[in-house]
Amino acid sequence: MTSLRESTSDPDPSEVPAGAPGLSEIEAAARRLAGHAVVTPLLEYPAFNERVGGRILIKAETLQLTGSFKFRGAFNKISQIPEAARAGGVIAYSSGNHAQGVAAAARLLGIAATIVMPADAPAIKIENTRALGADVVLYDRRRDAREEITERLMAERRATLVRPYDDPDIIAGQGTCGLEIFRQAAAVGARLDAALVCCGGGGLIAGTATALCGLDPAIAVYAVEPEGFDDTARSLAGGRPVSNDPAARSFCDALLVPTPGELTFSINRRLLAGGLAVDDREVARAMGFAFRDLKLVVEPGGAVALAALLAGKFDAGGKTVAVTLTGGNVDPATFAAAIASAGTA
Amino acid sequence: MTSLRESTSDPDPSEVPAGAPGLSEIEAAARRLAGHAVVTPLLEYPAFNERVGGRILIKAETLQLTGSFKFRGAFNKISQIPEAARAGGVIAYSSGNHAQGVAAAARLLGIAATIVMPADAPAIKIENTRALGADVVLYDRRRDAREEITERLMAERRATLVRPYDDPDIIAGQGTCGLEIFRQAAAVGARLDAALVCCGGGGLIAGTATALCGLDPAIAVYAVEPEGFDDTARSLAGGRPVSNDPAARSFCDALLVPTPGELTFSINRRLLAGGLAVDDREVARAMGFAFRDLKLVVEPGGAVALAALLAGKFDAGGKTVAVTLTGGNVDPATFAAAIASAGTA
Repeated sequence: MTSLRESTSDPDPSEVPAGAPGLSEIEAAARRLAGHAVVTPLLEYPAFNERVGGRILIKAETLQLTGSFKFRGAFNKISQIPEAARAGGVIAYSSGNHAQGVAAAARLLGIAATIVMPADAPAIKIENTRALGADVVLYDRRRDAREEITERLMAERRATLVRPYDDPDIIAGQGTCGLEIFRQAAAVGARLDAALVCCGGGGLIAGTATALCGLDPAIAVYAVEPEGFDDTARSLAGGRPVSNDPAARSFCDALLVPTPGELTFSINRRLLAGGLAVDDREVARAMGFAFRDLKLVVEPGGAVALAALLAGKFDAGGKTVAVTLTGGNVDPATFAAAIASAGTA
Repeated sequence: MTSLRESTSDPDPSEVPAGAPGLSEIEAAARRLAGHAVVTPLLEYPAFNERVGGRILIKAETLQLTGSFKFRGAFNKISQIPEAARAGGVIAYSSGNHAQGVAAAARLLGIAATIVMPADAPAIKIENTRALGADVVLYDRRRDAREEITERLMAERRATLVRPYDDPDIIAGQGTCGLEIFRQAAAVGARLDAALVCCGGGGLIAGTATALCGLDPAIAVYAVEPEGFDDTARSLAGGRPVSNDPAARSFCDALLVPTPGELTFSINRRLLAGGLAVDDREVARAMGFAFRDLKLVVEPGGAVALAALLAGKFDAGGKTVAVTLTGGNVDPATFAAAIASAGTA
């Protein structure tokens, strides 16, 4: 675990970065999402509390529309596109969860969506995105540059780009998850000491930390990433953005970004308490635990925060800790393999 | 589907049967359970609503303590055992979900629990019951009479019997599920036309119908059972209790009772609108749907109500319908087999 609050580098990490949304932007996003997004439950299990010796509150974003938190940011962004620009539709590139979030939000708002996806994304994610009415354009990860494909289609279709994380409206939308965590915890009389948040490009954690730390600066927010893709943890530790080894592999398909986002990292370096990493075996064990003890379907990338807790990478003893389960879009075969040994957890 | 409201037989089915709990007993149970049981979420999915052309509200009792609604009745019953009788502990026979509910409730109340279980119950249910601190006594379904074993242990240990369904305090406890459904539906501006409830011995549906019909007599409550174990549907249709063919088989282990309970049937014949039955293939498809589209782990017996809806056995067109998912305690191999084809749902 890396403590980060003291790290220094240029620019001054204690200053609110330009373009970063604040608590008021997150509250505005929550008003836009009201009646559209699910207020996902914050669940508590006495047996789990006993096991870790603390109070664990589980934010089940798996139960969000499209099976992940991504709908929040997408709806917040797309609902603000001016009328005149809507005819061209929206475009996004994504391995799957952002794809579904954008497709669902665009559909609700009556706007066409084009999604550029790698051909080897989980079948369930490609199918669901198509089922939501989006025009899915597949590309080969090794051969094609998704940026080029996206730019060509943007120009052809006059479509508005919806970035997966490096956008203030996306970050504010994802931050509504943090706002809900805080309010739901307060409603059950819990004051959070820490939050463990799954981290890919860093949009969810940037928004969630903005909400949580804005409401209570004493809450320590930790990024959790797959081993080999712990760019945020290492960037936080080093004070400047670093990249992952291109040879790294993980089955956490939702979290495989090469480097932290520019805007998200400028926020995260100021707010996060540190970063944790878990390996695929620890993630599979967490998926099995969620299946067996929580009765929730969690995809690999959505289970890393829970994995960090179960693997003892974060000591929750005596603490009240929020843990995000960020997505549940996983193919049956991958899920079956992960839970096969859950009977002996 | 069998309409039941008009059926007649002795005793007069329109009269409240002796010993049946009323709305006030269910409200008292809710006060006992407050702070102990989970107020499980009532979930809604726009894509699902579109698919069936109605408004579907899903009561996720899979997220209840011990992974099924059974904790509700068990806690309501055991918490009322007089101080003087507590030293002998409690005893129950169950294939698994009632076992865990009793074990968890007894543990919370500091009372010893003995559970008589068939040796071929799902491993996850036996393990979980042991993990909750109960003394599990296994028997052979074909060779041993569980009643004899239970009676012998009751006498030896001076234990209080906690029946799985034919007990007013158990029925009142399960009825808190119906009370929550009504209140949660009202909170999202929904007025229920119908409720589909999984049915084994009939305790959950007797309590739930007492709550729902007590609050709004226009709500039509249907029992859903596995094919071959549709004793409640056939008993409702015929106006008197009938038994299932002993040769019948189903993988819905939680719902395999030979005949309706005496007290539960006396309540159900008065309140239910009818009964529906689903086969194992329809149940497996519902488990796959819950996995893929709802991100919820549901066991076979917990998925029958959802299966009835998905298989078109109940037309939800233009209606607002509550559907219970009653349990999620399923072995990994059974679950993997059920969801294997979920990618093509």
